[in-house]
Amino acid sequence: MPQQTMEARRKPMPLNGVDTPQLFATINAVGAHPELAKFQFRASNRWIEGTHSLGRIETFYGAGAEQRHVRAFDYDADHPAVLVGQDRGPTPVEFLLQALLACLTAGIGNIAAARGVKLTRVESRVEGDIDLQGILGLSDDVRNGYQRVRVSFDIEGDAPEEKLREIVEQSKARSAVFDVLTNGVPVEVTVNAG
Amino acid sequence: MPQQTMEARRKPMPLNGVDTPQLFATINAVGAHPELAKFQFRASNRWIEGTHSLGRIETFYGAGAEQRHVRAFDYDADHPAVLVGQDRGPTPVEFLLQALLACLTAGIGNIAAARGVKLTRVESRVEGDIDLQGILGLSDDVRNGYQRVRVSFDIEGDAPEEKLREIVEQSKARSAVFDVLTNGVPVEVTVNAG
Repeated sequence: MPQQTMEARRKPMPLNGVDTPQLFATINAVGAHPELAKFQFRASNRWIEGTHSLGRIETFYGAGAEQRHVRAFDYDADHPAVLVGQDRGPTPVEFLLQALLACLTAGIGNIAAARGVKLTRVESRVEGDIDLQGILGLSDDVRNGYQRVRVSFDIEGDAPEEKLREIVEQSKARSAVFDVLTNGVPVEVTVNAG
Repeated sequence: MPQQTMEARRKPMPLNGVDTPQLFATINAVGAHPELAKFQFRASNRWIEGTHSLGRIETFYGAGAEQRHVRAFDYDADHPAVLVGQDRGPTPVEFLLQALLACLTAGIGNIAAARGVKLTRVESRVEGDIDLQGILGLSDDVRNGYQRVRVSFDIEGDAPEEKLREIVEQSKARSAVFDVLTNGVPVEVTVNAG
Protein backbone atom coordinates (compact mmCIF):
# COMPACT_ATOMS: atom_id res chain seq x y z
CA MET A 1 0.00 0.00 0.00
CA PRO A 2 1.39 3.47 -0.77
CA GLN A 3 2.83 5.36 2.18
CA GLN A 4 0.43 8.28 1.51
CA THR A 5 -2.51 6.01 2.23
CA MET A 6 -1.01 5.13 5.58
CA GLU A 7 -0.52 8.78 6.38
CA ALA A 8 -4.15 9.52 5.68
CA ARG A 9 -5.19 6.79 8.07
CA ARG A 10 -3.44 8.06 11.17
CA LYS A 11 -1.56 11.05 12.44
CA PRO A 12 2.14 10.10 12.31
CA MET A 13 4.09 10.17 15.57
CA PRO A 14 7.82 9.67 16.10
CA LEU A 15 8.37 6.00 16.95
CA ASN A 16 11.28 3.57 17.14
CA GLY A 17 13.67 6.52 16.82
CA VAL A 18 12.08 7.32 13.45
CA ASP A 19 10.91 10.91 12.95
CA THR A 20 7.78 9.63 11.28
CA PRO A 21 6.27 13.07 10.48
CA GLN A 22 9.56 14.03 8.81
CA LEU A 23 9.60 10.69 6.95
CA PHE A 24 6.13 11.32 5.54
CA ALA A 25 7.01 14.96 4.75
CA THR A 26 10.04 13.71 2.82
CA ILE A 27 7.97 11.17 0.91
CA ASN A 28 5.41 13.85 0.05
CA ALA A 29 8.12 16.31 -1.03
CA VAL A 30 9.66 13.69 -3.31
CA GLY A 31 6.23 12.78 -4.62
CA ALA A 32 5.71 16.41 -5.63
CA HIS A 33 9.25 16.82 -7.03
CA PRO A 34 10.49 13.46 -8.34
CA GLU A 35 13.88 14.93 -9.30
CA LEU A 36 14.67 15.10 -5.56
CA ALA A 37 14.68 11.30 -5.58
CA LYS A 38 17.70 11.09 -7.89
CA PHE A 39 20.65 10.09 -5.72
CA GLN A 40 24.20 9.08 -6.51
CA PHE A 41 26.17 7.20 -3.87
CA ARG A 42 29.95 6.93 -4.06
CA ALA A 43 33.00 5.29 -2.57
CA SER A 44 36.70 5.46 -3.19
CA ASN A 45 39.47 2.99 -2.43
CA ARG A 46 43.24 2.98 -2.10
CA TRP A 47 45.28 -0.20 -2.35
CA ILE A 48 47.69 -0.63 0.57
CA GLU A 49 49.42 -3.96 -0.14
CA GLY A 50 48.56 -7.54 -0.95
CA THR A 51 44.79 -7.94 -0.57
CA HIS A 52 44.57 -5.04 1.89
CA SER A 53 42.84 -1.84 0.81
CA LEU A 54 41.30 1.18 2.50
CA GLY A 55 37.92 2.37 1.34
CA ARG A 56 36.27 5.72 2.05
CA ILE A 57 32.63 6.80 1.94
CA GLU A 58 32.14 10.55 2.25
CA THR A 59 30.10 12.46 -0.34
CA PHE A 60 26.94 11.75 -2.27
CA TYR A 61 24.43 13.59 -4.40
CA GLY A 62 20.76 13.72 -3.59
CA ALA A 63 17.72 15.88 -2.85
CA GLY A 64 18.92 18.18 -5.63
CA ALA A 65 22.33 19.01 -4.16
CA GLU A 66 25.80 17.71 -3.33
CA GLN A 67 25.76 16.18 0.14
CA ARG A 68 28.40 15.14 2.64
CA HIS A 69 28.18 12.63 5.50
CA VAL A 70 28.84 14.08 8.97
CA ARG A 71 32.29 12.51 8.64
CA ALA A 72 34.24 10.35 6.24
CA PHE A 73 33.75 6.64 6.94
CA ASP A 74 36.89 4.56 6.31
CA TYR A 75 36.95 0.79 6.02
CA ASP A 76 39.85 -1.62 5.74
CA ALA A 77 39.25 -4.77 3.74
CA ASP A 78 41.58 -7.75 3.43
CA HIS A 79 41.68 -11.51 3.13
CA PRO A 80 42.17 -13.68 6.23
CA ALA A 81 45.36 -15.73 6.70
CA VAL A 82 43.68 -18.86 5.33
CA LEU A 83 43.24 -16.90 2.09
CA VAL A 84 46.81 -15.58 2.14
CA GLY A 85 45.96 -12.15 3.56
CA GLN A 86 46.74 -10.40 6.85
CA ASP A 87 43.11 -10.13 8.07
CA ARG A 88 43.31 -6.35 8.52
CA GLY A 89 39.60 -6.15 7.70
CA PRO A 90 36.74 -8.33 6.52
CA THR A 91 36.72 -9.80 3.06
CA PRO A 92 34.86 -7.80 0.40
CA VAL A 93 32.12 -10.45 0.17
CA GLU A 94 31.42 -9.98 3.88
CA PHE A 95 30.73 -6.28 3.28
CA LEU A 96 27.95 -7.42 0.92
CA LEU A 97 26.34 -9.31 3.79
CA GLN A 98 26.67 -6.28 6.10
CA ALA A 99 24.95 -4.18 3.44
CA LEU A 100 22.09 -6.63 3.11
CA LEU A 101 21.25 -6.90 6.82
CA ALA A 102 21.64 -3.16 7.38
CA CYS A 103 19.28 -2.36 4.50
CA LEU A 104 16.55 -4.78 5.53
CA THR A 105 16.87 -3.59 9.15
CA ALA A 106 16.62 0.12 8.29
CA GLY A 107 13.52 -0.64 6.27
CA ILE A 108 12.01 -2.55 9.18
CA GLY A 109 12.60 0.45 11.47
CA ASN A 110 10.92 2.85 9.06
CA ILE A 111 8.02 0.63 8.07
CA ALA A 112 7.21 -0.34 11.65
CA ALA A 113 7.10 3.36 12.62
CA ALA A 114 4.91 4.16 9.63
CA ARG A 115 2.52 1.41 10.68
CA GLY A 116 2.49 2.49 14.33
CA VAL A 117 4.30 -0.63 15.59
CA LYS A 118 6.79 -0.19 18.43
CA LEU A 119 9.73 -2.53 18.00
CA THR A 120 11.64 -3.96 20.94
CA ARG A 121 14.16 -6.19 19.16
CA VAL A 122 15.35 -6.78 15.61
CA GLU A 123 18.31 -9.10 15.19
CA SER A 124 19.47 -10.90 12.11
CA ARG A 125 22.06 -13.26 10.74
CA VAL A 126 23.12 -13.99 7.20
CA GLU A 127 25.26 -16.66 5.62
CA GLY A 128 26.49 -16.90 2.05
CA ASP A 129 27.82 -20.07 0.45
CA ILE A 130 30.72 -19.68 -1.93
CA ASP A 131 32.97 -22.16 -3.68
CA LEU A 132 36.38 -20.55 -4.15
CA GLN A 133 37.27 -22.80 -7.08
CA GLY A 134 35.72 -19.99 -9.13
CA ILE A 135 37.86 -17.05 -8.02
CA LEU A 136 40.97 -19.23 -7.74
CA GLY A 137 40.65 -20.03 -11.44
CA LEU A 138 40.39 -23.78 -10.77
CA SER A 139 37.03 -24.31 -12.42
CA ASP A 140 35.10 -22.49 -15.10
CA ASP A 141 31.93 -24.31 -14.02
CA VAL A 142 31.88 -22.68 -10.58
CA ARG A 143 30.68 -19.10 -10.34
CA ASN A 144 32.93 -16.53 -8.67
CA GLY A 145 30.36 -15.20 -6.23
CA TYR A 146 27.91 -16.57 -3.68
CA GLN A 147 25.81 -19.48 -4.82
CA ARG A 148 23.09 -18.69 -2.32
CA VAL A 149 22.47 -16.39 0.64
CA ARG A 150 20.24 -17.09 3.64
CA VAL A 151 18.97 -14.39 5.99
CA SER A 152 17.17 -14.98 9.28
CA PHE A 153 15.39 -12.27 11.29
CA ASP A 154 14.22 -12.23 14.89
CA ILE A 155 11.67 -9.46 15.35
CA GLU A 156 9.74 -8.49 18.48
CA GLY A 157 7.34 -5.62 19.14
CA ASP A 158 3.85 -4.60 20.24
CA ALA A 159 2.06 -6.22 17.30
CA PRO A 160 0.81 -9.70 16.48
CA GLU A 161 3.28 -12.11 14.91
CA GLU A 162 1.59 -11.78 11.52
CA LYS A 163 1.94 -8.01 11.47
CA LEU A 164 5.62 -8.25 12.43
CA ARG A 165 6.16 -10.73 9.58
CA GLU A 166 4.46 -8.35 7.16
CA ILE A 167 6.85 -5.56 8.18
CA VAL A 168 9.85 -7.74 7.29
CA GLU A 169 8.14 -8.73 4.05
CA GLN A 170 7.51 -5.10 3.10
CA SER A 171 11.12 -4.18 3.92
CA LYS A 172 12.30 -6.95 1.59
CA ALA A 173 9.92 -5.71 -1.10
CA ARG A 174 11.40 -2.17 -0.89
CA SER A 175 15.05 -2.90 -0.08
CA ALA A 176 17.62 -1.39 -2.42
CA VAL A 177 20.31 -3.89 -1.45
CA PHE A 178 17.98 -6.89 -1.69
CA ASP A 179 17.01 -5.73 -5.18
CA VAL A 180 20.62 -5.32 -6.32
CA LEU A 181 21.74 -8.65 -4.85
CA THR A 182 18.85 -10.66 -6.23
CA ASN A 183 18.44 -8.94 -9.61
CA GLY A 184 21.92 -7.63 -10.33
CA VAL A 185 22.94 -4.25 -11.73
CA PRO A 186 25.03 -3.22 -14.76
CA VAL A 187 28.59 -2.38 -13.62
CA GLU A 188 30.96 -0.54 -15.96
CA VAL A 189 34.70 -0.56 -15.20
CA THR A 190 37.12 1.88 -16.81
CA VAL A 191 40.89 1.91 -16.34
CA ASN A 192 43.53 4.65 -16.43
CA ALA A 193 46.84 2.79 -16.63
CA GLY A 194 50.37 4.07 -16.89
CA MET B 1 44.94 -18.87 -18.22
CA PRO B 2 45.02 -21.24 -15.21
CA GLN B 3 47.21 -20.13 -12.33
CA GLN B 4 49.12 -23.41 -12.47
CA THR B 5 50.40 -22.50 -15.90
CA MET B 6 51.74 -19.26 -14.55
CA GLU B 7 53.45 -21.10 -11.73
CA ALA B 8 55.22 -23.38 -14.19
CA ARG B 9 56.48 -20.39 -16.11
CA ARG B 10 58.29 -18.62 -13.32
CA LYS B 11 59.44 -19.19 -9.79
CA PRO B 12 57.00 -17.23 -7.62
CA MET B 13 58.43 -14.53 -5.36
CA PRO B 14 56.62 -12.45 -2.75
CA LEU B 15 55.59 -9.18 -4.40
CA ASN B 16 53.23 -6.28 -3.65
CA GLY B 17 52.83 -7.62 -0.11
CA VAL B 18 51.46 -10.86 -1.55
CA ASP B 19 53.07 -14.08 -0.33
CA THR B 20 53.00 -15.42 -3.86
CA PRO B 21 54.53 -18.85 -3.05
CA GLN B 22 51.87 -19.30 -0.37
CA LEU B 23 49.18 -18.14 -2.81
CA PHE B 24 50.24 -20.76 -5.36
CA ALA B 25 50.52 -23.41 -2.63
CA THR B 26 46.97 -22.60 -1.56
CA ILE B 27 45.68 -22.81 -5.12
CA ASN B 28 47.43 -26.16 -5.59
CA ALA B 29 46.08 -27.50 -2.28
CA VAL B 30 42.54 -26.53 -3.25
CA GLY B 31 43.06 -28.01 -6.72
CA ALA B 32 43.93 -31.34 -5.09
CA HIS B 33 41.14 -31.13 -2.49
CA PRO B 34 38.21 -29.14 -3.93
CA GLU B 35 36.23 -29.48 -0.69
CA LEU B 36 38.69 -26.99 0.87
CA ALA B 37 37.23 -24.36 -1.47
CA LYS B 38 33.80 -24.51 0.15
CA PHE B 39 33.45 -21.35 2.24
CA GLN B 40 30.58 -19.81 4.12
CA PHE B 41 30.79 -16.13 5.04
CA ARG B 42 28.51 -14.63 7.69
CA ALA B 43 27.37 -11.42 9.28
CA SER B 44 24.97 -10.50 12.05
CA ASN B 45 23.11 -7.30 12.78
CA ARG B 46 21.32 -5.64 15.68
CA TRP B 47 18.84 -2.83 15.20
CA ILE B 48 19.58 0.19 17.42
CA GLU B 49 16.84 2.68 16.50
CA GLY B 50 15.36 4.33 13.45
CA THR B 51 17.50 3.39 10.47
CA HIS B 52 20.59 2.84 12.65
CA SER B 53 21.92 -0.70 13.07
CA LEU B 54 25.16 -2.30 14.16
CA GLY B 55 26.56 -5.13 12.08
CA ARG B 56 29.23 -7.62 13.07
CA ILE B 57 31.52 -9.81 10.97
CA GLU B 58 33.43 -12.39 12.98
CA THR B 59 33.33 -16.07 12.04
CA PHE B 60 33.31 -17.98 8.79
CA TYR B 61 33.73 -21.52 7.56
CA GLY B 62 36.39 -22.49 5.06
CA ALA B 63 39.39 -24.68 4.28
CA GLY B 64 37.53 -27.52 5.96
CA ALA B 65 37.10 -25.91 9.37
CA GLU B 66 35.38 -23.19 11.38
CA GLN B 67 37.44 -20.00 11.20
CA ARG B 68 37.50 -16.71 13.09
CA HIS B 69 38.82 -13.32 12.04
CA VAL B 70 41.63 -11.92 14.21
CA ARG B 71 38.94 -9.74 15.77
CA ALA B 72 35.25 -8.98 15.36
CA PHE B 73 34.64 -6.19 12.85
CA ASP B 74 31.69 -3.95 13.80
CA TYR B 75 30.01 -1.50 11.44
CA ASP B 76 27.33 1.08 12.08
CA ALA B 77 24.95 1.80 9.22
CA ASP B 78 22.33 4.53 9.07
CA HIS B 79 20.62 6.97 6.76
CA PRO B 80 21.86 10.57 6.49
CA ALA B 81 19.72 13.48 7.73
CA VAL B 82 18.40 14.15 4.22
CA LEU B 83 16.95 10.63 4.36
CA VAL B 84 15.56 11.10 7.88
CA GLY B 85 18.40 9.27 9.68
CA GLN B 86 21.11 10.41 12.10
CA ASP B 87 24.09 9.60 9.81
CA ARG B 88 25.75 7.35 12.38
CA GLY B 89 27.22 5.31 9.54
CA PRO B 90 27.04 4.99 5.76
CA THR B 91 23.88 3.86 4.05
CA PRO B 92 23.63 0.14 3.28
CA VAL B 93 23.92 0.79 -0.46
CA GLU B 94 27.27 2.49 0.13
CA PHE B 95 28.59 -0.69 1.77
CA LEU B 96 27.88 -2.42 -1.57
CA LEU B 97 30.20 0.05 -3.29
CA GLN B 98 32.90 -0.47 -0.64
CA ALA B 99 32.63 -4.24 -1.25
CA LEU B 100 32.99 -3.84 -4.99
CA LEU B 101 36.14 -1.67 -4.94
CA ALA B 102 37.77 -3.76 -2.21
CA CYS B 103 37.16 -6.99 -4.15
CA LEU B 104 38.50 -5.71 -7.46
CA THR B 105 41.50 -4.17 -5.67
CA ALA B 106 42.39 -7.36 -3.76
CA GLY B 107 42.26 -9.26 -7.03
CA ILE B 108 44.54 -6.72 -8.67
CA GLY B 109 47.09 -7.15 -5.86
CA ASN B 110 47.09 -10.94 -6.19
CA ILE B 111 47.05 -11.11 -9.98
CA ALA B 112 49.83 -8.54 -10.36
CA ALA B 113 52.01 -10.53 -7.94
CA ALA B 114 51.24 -13.77 -9.77
CA ARG B 115 52.28 -12.13 -13.05
CA GLY B 116 55.46 -10.62 -11.58
CA VAL B 117 54.24 -7.02 -11.84
CA LYS B 118 55.21 -4.62 -9.06
CA LEU B 119 52.42 -2.15 -8.38
CA THR B 120 53.07 1.38 -7.16
CA ARG B 121 49.52 2.77 -7.04
CA VAL B 122 45.99 1.45 -7.32
CA GLU B 123 43.19 3.89 -6.61
CA SER B 124 39.56 3.68 -7.55
CA ARG B 125 36.25 5.46 -7.37
CA VAL B 126 32.74 4.16 -7.83
CA GLU B 127 29.38 5.83 -8.23
CA GLY B 128 25.95 4.25 -8.27
CA ASP B 129 22.82 5.96 -9.58
CA ILE B 130 19.62 5.30 -7.69
CA ASP B 131 16.14 6.81 -7.91
CA LEU B 132 14.56 6.71 -4.47
CA GLN B 133 11.02 6.78 -5.86
CA GLY B 134 11.39 2.98 -5.75
CA ILE B 135 12.17 2.45 -2.06
CA LEU B 136 9.88 5.31 -1.00
CA GLY B 137 6.97 3.45 -2.58
CA LEU B 138 6.19 6.35 -4.95
CA SER B 139 6.57 4.41 -8.18
CA ASP B 140 6.29 0.78 -9.13
CA ASP B 141 8.12 1.48 -12.38
CA VAL B 142 11.34 2.48 -10.64
CA ARG B 143 13.52 -0.28 -9.29
CA ASN B 144 14.54 -0.17 -5.62
CA GLY B 145 18.26 -0.57 -6.19
CA TYR B 146 20.98 1.02 -8.28
CA GLN B 147 20.15 1.53 -11.94
CA ARG B 148 23.80 1.50 -12.94
CA VAL B 149 27.22 1.50 -11.30
CA ARG B 150 30.44 2.98 -12.73
CA VAL B 151 33.92 2.10 -11.48
CA SER B 152 37.12 3.86 -12.46
CA PHE B 153 40.63 2.56 -11.66
CA ASP B 154 43.98 4.32 -11.70
CA ILE B 155 46.75 1.72 -11.79
CA GLU B 156 50.52 2.25 -11.95
CA GLY B 157 53.40 -0.24 -11.82
CA ASP B 158 56.48 -1.58 -13.59
CA ALA B 159 54.62 -2.97 -16.59
CA PRO B 160 53.35 -1.54 -19.87
CA GLU B 161 49.95 0.08 -19.86
CA GLU B 162 48.42 -2.87 -21.70
CA LYS B 163 49.62 -5.37 -19.10
CA LEU B 164 48.27 -3.21 -16.28
CA ARG B 165 44.91 -3.06 -18.05
CA GLU B 166 44.89 -6.84 -18.39
CA ILE B 167 45.42 -7.22 -14.64
CA VAL B 168 42.31 -5.14 -13.94
CA GLU B 169 40.42 -7.10 -16.58
CA GLN B 170 41.42 -10.42 -15.01
CA SER B 171 40.44 -9.20 -11.55
CA LYS B 172 37.01 -8.27 -12.89
CA ALA B 173 36.73 -11.69 -14.53
CA ARG B 174 37.42 -13.41 -11.18
CA SER B 175 35.79 -11.05 -8.70
CA ALA B 176 33.22 -12.57 -6.36
CA VAL B 177 31.56 -9.21 -5.67
CA PHE B 178 31.50 -8.17 -9.33
CA ASP B 179 29.82 -11.49 -10.13
CA VAL B 180 27.17 -11.11 -7.43
CA LEU B 181 26.41 -7.49 -8.30
CA THR B 182 26.17 -8.05 -12.05
CA ASN B 183 24.51 -11.48 -12.05
CA GLY B 184 22.59 -11.51 -8.78
CA VAL B 185 22.27 -14.32 -6.25
CA PRO B 186 19.26 -16.09 -4.73
CA VAL B 187 18.53 -14.65 -1.27
CA GLU B 188 16.20 -16.46 1.12
CA VAL B 189 14.74 -14.55 4.10
CA THR B 190 13.14 -16.32 7.06
CA VAL B 191 11.48 -14.62 10.02
CA ASN B 192 11.04 -15.55 13.67
CA ALA B 193 8.39 -13.14 14.97
CA GLY B 194 6.74 -12.79 18.34
